[in-house]
Amino acid sequence: MKTALLLYSLLCLSLTTSVAQPNKRPREYGIRFGVVPTGPLNTITDVPSVRVGQVTLQQGTSVRTGVTAILPHKDNIFQQKAPAAIYIGNGFGKLTGYSQVEELGTLETPIVLTNTLSVPTATDALIDYTLAQPGNGRVRSVNPVVGETNDGFLNDIRGRHVTKQHVLQALQQAKTGPVEEGNVGAGTGTVCFGFKGGIGTSSRKLPASLGGYTVGVLVQTNFGGVLQIAGVPVGVRLGAYDFKEKLDGSCMIVVLTDAPLDARNLRRLAKRAFMGLARTGGIASNGSGDYVIAASTAYRIPHETTSQFDEVKHLRNDNISPLFMAAIEATEEAIINSLFAAQTLSGDQGHRVSALPVDQVLDLLRKAGQL
Amino acid sequence: MKTALLLYSLLCLSLTTSVAQPNKRPREYGIRFGVVPTGPLNTITDVPSVRVGQVTLQQGTSVRTGVTAILPHKDNIFQQKAPAAIYIGNGFGKLTGYSQVEELGTLETPIVLTNTLSVPTATDALIDYTLAQPGNGRVRSVNPVVGETNDGFLNDIRGRHVTKQHVLQALQQAKTGPVEEGNVGAGTGTVCFGFKGGIGTSSRKLPASLGGYTVGVLVQTNFGGVLQIAGVPVGVRLGAYDFKEKLDGSCMIVVLTDAPLDARNLRRLAKRAFMGLARTGGIASNGSGDYVIAASTAYRIPHETTSQFDEVKHLRNDNISPLFMAAIEATEEAIINSLFAAQTLSGDQGHRVSALPVDQVLDLLRKAGQL
Amino acid sequence: MKTALLLYSLLCLSLTTSVAQPNKRPREYGIRFGVVPTGPLNTITDVPSVRVGQVTLQQGTSVRTGVTAILPHKDNIFQQKAPAAIYIGNGFGKLTGYSQVEELGTLETPIVLTNTLSVPTATDALIDYTLAQPGNGRVRSVNPVVGETNDGFLNDIRGRHVTKQHVLQALQQAKTGPVEEGNVGAGTGTVCFGFKGGIGTSSRKLPASLGGYTVGVLVQTNFGGVLQIAGVPVGVRLGAYDFKEKLDGSCMIVVLTDAPLDARNLRRLAKRAFMGLARTGGIASNGSGDYVIAASTAYRIPHETTSQFDEVKHLRNDNISPLFMAAIEATEEAIINSLFAAQTLSGDQGHRVSALPVDQVLDLLRKAGQL
Amino acid sequence: MKTALLLYSLLCLSLTTSVAQPNKRPREYGIRFGVVPTGPLNTITDVPSVRVGQVTLQQGTSVRTGVTAILPHKDNIFQQKAPAAIYIGNGFGKLTGYSQVEELGTLETPIVLTNTLSVPTATDALIDYTLAQPGNGRVRSVNPVVGETNDGFLNDIRGRHVTKQHVLQALQQAKTGPVEEGNVGAGTGTVCFGFKGGIGTSSRKLPASLGGYTVGVLVQTNFGGVLQIAGVPVGVRLGAYDFKEKLDGSCMIVVLTDAPLDARNLRRLAKRAFMGLARTGGIASNGSGDYVIAASTAYRIPHETTSQFDEVKHLRNDNISPLFMAAIEATEEAIINSLFAAQTLSGDQGHRVSALPVDQVLDLLRKAGQL
Repeated sequence: MKTALLLYSLLCLSLTTSVAQPNKRPREYGIRFGVVPTGPLNTITDVPSVRVGQVTLQQGTSVRTGVTAILPHKDNIFQQKAPAAIYIGNGFGKLTGYSQVEELGTLETPIVLTNTLSVPTATDALIDYTLAQPGNGRVRSVNPVVGETNDGFLNDIRGRHVTKQHVLQALQQAKTGPVEEGNVGAGTGTVCFGFKGGIGTSSRKLPASLGGYTVGVLVQTNFGGVLQIAGVPVGVRLGAYDFKEKLDGSCMIVVLTDAPLDARNLRRLAKRAFMGLARTGGIASNGSGDYVIAASTAYRIPHETTSQFDEVKHLRNDNISPLFMAAIEATEEAIINSLFAAQTLSGDQGHRVSALPVDQVLDLLRKAGQL
Repeated sequence: MKTALLLYSLLCLSLTTSVAQPNKRPREYGIRFGVVPTGPLNTITDVPSVRVGQVTLQQGTSVRTGVTAILPHKDNIFQQKAPAAIYIGNGFGKLTGYSQVEELGTLETPIVLTNTLSVPTATDALIDYTLAQPGNGRVRSVNPVVGETNDGFLNDIRGRHVTKQHVLQALQQAKTGPVEEGNVGAGTGTVCFGFKGGIGTSSRKLPASLGGYTVGVLVQTNFGGVLQIAGVPVGVRLGAYDFKEKLDGSCMIVVLTDAPLDARNLRRLAKRAFMGLARTGGIASNGSGDYVIAASTAYRIPHETTSQFDEVKHLRNDNISPLFMAAIEATEEAIINSLFAAQTLSGDQGHRVSALPVDQVLDLLRKAGQL
Repeated sequence: MKTALLLYSLLCLSLTTSVAQPNKRPREYGIRFGVVPTGPLNTITDVPSVRVGQVTLQQGTSVRTGVTAILPHKDNIFQQKAPAAIYIGNGFGKLTGYSQVEELGTLETPIVLTNTLSVPTATDALIDYTLAQPGNGRVRSVNPVVGETNDGFLNDIRGRHVTKQHVLQALQQAKTGPVEEGNVGAGTGTVCFGFKGGIGTSSRKLPASLGGYTVGVLVQTNFGGVLQIAGVPVGVRLGAYDFKEKLDGSCMIVVLTDAPLDARNLRRLAKRAFMGLARTGGIASNGSGDYVIAASTAYRIPHETTSQFDEVKHLRNDNISPLFMAAIEATEEAIINSLFAAQTLSGDQGHRVSALPVDQVLDLLRKAGQL
Repeated sequence: MKTALLLYSLLCLSLTTSVAQPNKRPREYGIRFGVVPTGPLNTITDVPSVRVGQVTLQQGTSVRTGVTAILPHKDNIFQQKAPAAIYIGNGFGKLTGYSQVEELGTLETPIVLTNTLSVPTATDALIDYTLAQPGNGRVRSVNPVVGETNDGFLNDIRGRHVTKQHVLQALQQAKTGPVEEGNVGAGTGTVCFGFKGGIGTSSRKLPASLGGYTVGVLVQTNFGGVLQIAGVPVGVRLGAYDFKEKLDGSCMIVVLTDAPLDARNLRRLAKRAFMGLARTGGIASNGSGDYVIAASTAYRIPHETTSQFDEVKHLRNDNISPLFMAAIEATEEAIINSLFAAQTLSGDQGHRVSALPVDQVLDLLRKAGQL
């Protein structure tokens, strides 16, 4: 049985990698988003201790989906909760865990992204994961945070092909360092502005004079509007927009930071990430489930402690605006990164979604003086 | 296999029924809650078209849990959505479906209640149920609404004994007419004010001069505070309170009405149900997940239609206050009904929870002139 | 001119005091609300440093209104802000300052209560007050928090008789110690459950084992429902309810505590105060403006500081439930206190509102075993 | 020294008044914002029945403020309320009327914009206005909606120079047709992205196939970030940004539409207007009070009626996305319009704010292919 699983995994991997030469990331072409410098890798993992794990499911002609897991730190997150908040951009979505994060101001599981109809499976897997962790033997209540977008155009979403094993695998494989973008994990089958979407990530690091904090963002792009890249109206110039299909869809945004923010200011930060989406031409259509989950790695809230108090040294309201700017810029760039990385894909019912025509885009940006 | 299931069901039933002589409902003893008359059965099913189905799991010494399903109407609810809203009293809970109900103002699945760690299973079952319904062949997005409380004191909650089959069974068995209360369905293993809690239900019917509308409430009581019955400080007089265990816990409240309310006014109505909880001495402790799901059966929002418009004739703000009163009273009574119906139960780890000592309670109410 | 003002003030005072023998407070008759002990005075001023100032306007046959000011501490509150939150029970009201308190988590002016149409005057007065304070010479933005209820049944509210001078006077006279209740300040002309309402106050002091914190509440009662006193259905037994006038109206609730709570937990505390209103039989009718303003005196957020951080030691979520109970109980008692203190009053257009018939009420409570 | 200052002020004034041929509107230069066509005037008054009135206060060297009033229709709005909602982008502001609009879903006064410290005056004036209107003789409760931004850099804001008379004048002068932009009304003294801000307006008219509805927007721009015009990073290229002053500030946004939306969908529409702000490079800094007030003119909610019901034919959720796009685009354009129209101004304490250097901007846009 283990052999079978191994073979199966290899199959998935081989399917995943059987694709064309990938594009470079936008920034490597010289495209700039905003004015704040990126972190070293320009990924969410630039925030120290943050880990990302992804499992990609491409099977046969119809399975195009997957799982992306984001862990604020490598320790037992149930026992060492992260201060957190969730902002709802547009609530046509199935994210779980919202009310407890908002009520208590803490995140107690990793964040998992997947497709709409696999949320229960991923939620159940996070319960398995939490109950099984050393030290959690008496835990009887878990608040899994699972987000999703609907990949049902390319993926046989009704088949619910994501299993608990896939989710656990994503959690186990989570690591620091580079993060794969594009048709990977929860972004395997997504569509964005009518082009192939996927997973994207970016980061910003404030100058030391503003605290030196890092803000990292990871997105699952499956939404619509009229695409704008670094301000250039690419969607208009490519004629790639309409008022129906290309308008619709969802985006999941995860924001992590090592800035010491409390839940109230994390919610405000989350709201700014949604402004980053607006800068790409997204409109948060009626059918979109746009959620931003924000958490801080700067301190932890222990599940149990002998103290009656949480002693927290958090950033004053007055000093938070540069972080807002960082979250906006990193979200904008993460979205565009997802589009550059994603590749043309065929899937369920013969549907096919083309990659962003990067050469044409670069040409448009060059003409606009953005290269 | 079907035989096995049948035997198993009979076993559950026999376990459930192998208990003491049940108490009458409070109102049959002459206790009165508020001033608005009840509907004919004093149940949520007094609202025409509303159905309730429950599956009770009592197995061995440790399984004490179940499922309660509430259906606004007998038709395909995904295709004929109900106007709805959700109010969060205290958000330390795992309810699913919140944001979409709030964003769109509609409910598109039955409401299912179960235990905390079985929410994913119930959610998945609601997806199964919806995808399988005739007419839903192209559905690729479903927003299941599942609520829970934590029955982990009496129930081996980590064992997650609720299966999708149990949930589907509850949905299939749902019917109009009398509703079983007490140690049944999602209330099988719950604890309320330190006594055995469970499922309770009640209704109010406004006089014709105020519209003649019915408000029905169903509760899953698993919360704490200092118990007060029809205003009589029972918890104090029985010495049955503390500042720890008996203070804590959660309550799920479902409110249905045939009054034509839009989502905004349903949210306001839901908030009043939470005030009914306050009248029983509940305090919505830190650890409580108190949610109120409210929906109207007066009109439906079709999933698809040729019209660009919803044409709705809904009650004006000015006329809603009597409905508020009805929701408060019915919630108060439903909670007390759950306590009268629930019976002493032993469960996981040898834990035992005593039923409300109804004789003593009646005596206290008699002395207080409430009988 | 100052003499004139003095004479005028004395006149107001004499008008206020030219009434019947006041009742004792409910607790002095032996009535008990809940299980947590009160502070020494059973007033909001039991919270150390809290001050209350009230100006009562009773002039001629039609002016029945006033101002009540609550100060968290005696220092410059703009420079030394209080952590704070506001909960909206029902939003049919004109409270100012909501969004900034919620966004920043701080209160930067005293809280002022008055009548509905005098909110602008009171708001302007709070700006005057703040701009004029030593140390505020460069202040160009002030967020006044002013609440109200509508005393237009007894008061010529359209005449807007409250002046900035009255508000400033209330602020200047604010003091620690006993707080006058009943037909005083912002409660001068209010009506509650069909009886004369007014200002009420109460407090709770947790045992040392639970932190020893004090929760103080002050209410301006102008709302309806079916009155319940310490659980006894007084409204029903006196036949003093209907589904129209006696159902309607508003309540302002101010909660102060020396417990070290952050804004998130203050909002949760505020929500519990609203549950206290429910315990008196209030229903938060359509027409009600029910707001709870909660603030902590345990620490302050300086307007300016050299540090980038707020260093806060605040109570953990796990330890907050007893404070919830305290807020519920103190609010219930404060409301009933207002009814016991308020006296029969005639006012605008010959309207007359009778005081709660305290003798009958005591008799009912005696029969219910509550005395 | 005073003489010097005076001379300097006079110089400024002369500079201010000696200006300068006004710029054309961006669209007249050929700049395009988005893809949806504008209404005939590209103003909020393209929405039939909408009226705007403005009073500009420029007195001496220090008074630089004013009032802008927006009326959904010419009738008695208290008696014929408009369905409405308010979205809070960032709540560091003093807007009045929020909670009642959100609770009841209606607007019952004109919307007035002014400076931060003049909100009470404007609120009081709206009460005067409402009480005095024919048919309002018995009105004892009014919910004025007044927004503001802080013009205290150019304006002697502590002097509170706006009077009730100014507000009433703005209301009386309100008219359909062209709307003045720039240093006018509530925008007289505002600053945006470090340049002179002011009042701006724009509209979108959907094609008949999408309903043919008009969305009109009016903004009071006083905020910061890194300016982007039609996507071109003007702020970066002009070096006109920093992480302090030029980041901070507020924006009031008013959205009116003749699309038949209920309050829930108006709130969603309002949220999209905030996304339009994001597209200009705004970041909603900590210190910003960003509010969007949205109302529909398509139907009215009568204050009193013999019917128990509101009968409403409103747009289905499914058909709303094009309106979202319209609101985003119109807000973006209205903000840029305010910058093009505003002219260099000197004011309080010798402060001086330069107009957007339109020639340079046009040059940048030309190079970017946006002209």
